[in-house]
Amino acid sequence: MVSELEPCGSHFTQHFMKAVQSKKKIDKNTGDVLKEIYLDNSATTVTCEKAAQKALEIMTTQYGNPSSLHSKGLEAQHELEYVRQVAAKYIGAADNSEIYFTSGGTEGNNTAVFGAVNALKRRGNKIVTTAIEHSSVLEAMQKLEKDGLEVVYLRPDSSGSISWQSLTNAIDAKTILVSVMAVNNETGAIQPIEKIRKIIDKAKAPAVFHVDAVQMFGKLPIKVKKTGVDVLTASSHKIHGPKGAGILYVRKGVRLLPLHYGGEQEHKLRPGTEPLPAVAGMGAAIEELPDFREELTKITELNVYLRTQLGKIENVHINSNAECLPYILNFSLRGLRSETILHYLAEHHIYVSSGSACAKGKKSHVLTAQGLDSELADSAVRVSFSRYNTKEDVDELINSLIKADNTLARAK
Amino acid sequence: MVSELEPCGSHFTQHFMKAVQSKKKIDKNTGDVLKEIYLDNSATTVTCEKAAQKALEIMTTQYGNPSSLHSKGLEAQHELEYVRQVAAKYIGAADNSEIYFTSGGTEGNNTAVFGAVNALKRRGNKIVTTAIEHSSVLEAMQKLEKDGLEVVYLRPDSSGSISWQSLTNAIDAKTILVSVMAVNNETGAIQPIEKIRKIIDKAKAPAVFHVDAVQMFGKLPIKVKKTGVDVLTASSHKIHGPKGAGILYVRKGVRLLPLHYGGEQEHKLRPGTEPLPAVAGMGAAIEELPDFREELTKITELNVYLRTQLGKIENVHINSNAECLPYILNFSLRGLRSETILHYLAEHHIYVSSGSACAKGKKSHVLTAQGLDSELADSAVRVSFSRYNTKEDVDELINSLIKADNTLARAK
Repeated sequence: MVSELEPCGSHFTQHFMKAVQSKKKIDKNTGDVLKEIYLDNSATTVTCEKAAQKALEIMTTQYGNPSSLHSKGLEAQHELEYVRQVAAKYIGAADNSEIYFTSGGTEGNNTAVFGAVNALKRRGNKIVTTAIEHSSVLEAMQKLEKDGLEVVYLRPDSSGSISWQSLTNAIDAKTILVSVMAVNNETGAIQPIEKIRKIIDKAKAPAVFHVDAVQMFGKLPIKVKKTGVDVLTASSHKIHGPKGAGILYVRKGVRLLPLHYGGEQEHKLRPGTEPLPAVAGMGAAIEELPDFREELTKITELNVYLRTQLGKIENVHINSNAECLPYILNFSLRGLRSETILHYLAEHHIYVSSGSACAKGKKSHVLTAQGLDSELADSAVRVSFSRYNTKEDVDELINSLIKADNTLARAK
Repeated sequence: MVSELEPCGSHFTQHFMKAVQSKKKIDKNTGDVLKEIYLDNSATTVTCEKAAQKALEIMTTQYGNPSSLHSKGLEAQHELEYVRQVAAKYIGAADNSEIYFTSGGTEGNNTAVFGAVNALKRRGNKIVTTAIEHSSVLEAMQKLEKDGLEVVYLRPDSSGSISWQSLTNAIDAKTILVSVMAVNNETGAIQPIEKIRKIIDKAKAPAVFHVDAVQMFGKLPIKVKKTGVDVLTASSHKIHGPKGAGILYVRKGVRLLPLHYGGEQEHKLRPGTEPLPAVAGMGAAIEELPDFREELTKITELNVYLRTQLGKIENVHINSNAECLPYILNFSLRGLRSETILHYLAEHHIYVSSGSACAKGKKSHVLTAQGLDSELADSAVRVSFSRYNTKEDVDELINSLIKADNTLARAK
């Protein structure tokens, strides 16, 4: 936004980069700067320079409370409303007021799921979701099941996709919520979001249509109004914004009951002082997102290169098919446990994951639902790219994986 | 914490200050740097240098997800656990594991209130609280009343304090929650927290004892274990930490049901990726808090000076008595509406409030409960100090108030 304040100028940026660079890890033996290869961008991402700078500005100069009535508060509120506008435009919302700020993906998904069910429970008892949702949707569903609701968990085929047929069979006139993730966080499997609105309408279901778009946001174009999404969740720290902020899109006319009670913030759907450093940082991160098409081309090249190189390792089994979002590639190194591989790579400063960070090493419910055998599920590795990754990163990963495959002891 | 990383060094700090200073507002006529006099520190505070620097480091170098199993995640987790230790020590908790991180005061208060009631509702139906709580407690109570619980709202005397007698009368063997704020956010009135444990025990109530300590935290010493507090809420952005983080202390053995469902974070009481930039910043802000006694002496001097100077303005009525926490001074300028005064002062770059920022200008339920007449409640002004305020700030405020009192049109 156009600020009344004097800009920091490029001095700041220069120093910022220097400060970041001076924090690089140093090899104790050689004194060289250690290169970290971060390939776990579906867990979290580094905050980009512009976003970090914005957060810093908010903390130290535009630090007013957006709810305060004086000009210091108003200044902060303008920052908030600016991000609302950026976000609304980015996802194709009809109006800025359809954007609510949350603390992140989990709170967003919980507000969507509980908020919709609590608002609609007099109109039906059925919820349709999938067996491969993020834990912040799945655990909320299990709570609702305990409370007496009927939850249908649709299973994907071996490619990770939920079929049109199974959605059509499940959604009926008693369905009050349909919650389907746009892109799976473990495999990158893309769900047929654009078809779901039509199925709901055809079934004459009163359902709120919620999309967990945490892994899709910033990577594939999404137009909520056009697609007929009612509620959508996104998170700042998956797109190079700071941790601690998220977006909840709620289409005008859709009613959610709040999870939190308190002040007047966010139209009382999410009371509490907004996490402005993270929210403003998220706004800057959205503005820094590269052009979808160019970026997808680049990431697809990386993905294809990684697939090709992995193909040369005998014990590799690839769990993300070619239809998956190229930002994520899940594979198994047969006979080696995920954690063993992960720690071996981390020793070489290469960071990948065994699945969802939120699951902390539990066996993947996603790969299991996809029909993967236990041995393969136990040896799954997820590589997730960001715009900062290069072909050289893939080369380093492959070199280390070959060594791991040759040297690590296999379970019998 | 001792980091493996190279420190940024003093260059960073120097540049940081320069960056902040270069963002100061410039007077368009004179070209001078405009001095802002920020006296709304109960609404929010400026993030202190060390806290902002820490948040920046986390965003740009220790950006791992604390739940990731690799060393980049572990590094982030260490940061989180370090803050847990700092916070536990600061409030006199028995164990670090009693500290949970939230997104702030509202989420903390909601988790405490709903969490305790949902865990204990089979053991009783009664809640005891006060009529002067923050909206994040009061609105939660009103929701629980709708759900069929009996809520007793104790009223303060004209000094703002809840009497021992009224607490004793209200708390009984059916009481499952007692929720009382330590320091009122509008007047600074201090509640007799240390007596409540004894009243609960004497009544043989199964109650969870929750203290909203948002306005007390960092300003008065609190020892949760010694005082027998079960659950305590604190917020980062009231103590010069970043917005978007808070502390929920839950004594070992006390069970709260979660508000959010999802991953394994915070022992599943508060799932979702922790807002690490704000949490680590909060840790740094706690470490930067000055010695209680010295600071209280300094703030008391400011408060007494302000009271004395206000005494010279004929139309002033002081609403915070001498027993109130000196960080807050609430007064009315008879015949002038709060908002009129507030905007007049803001034009002179002096920022105060009419009450709680979260109430956005609604008539104060606190002053009304304290028995203030409508005219005085409508013209209330809250001054709230931080360690950065000086006697000169008070002088500027008084000068502008005298002008306001003399020149602004009074309602008939």
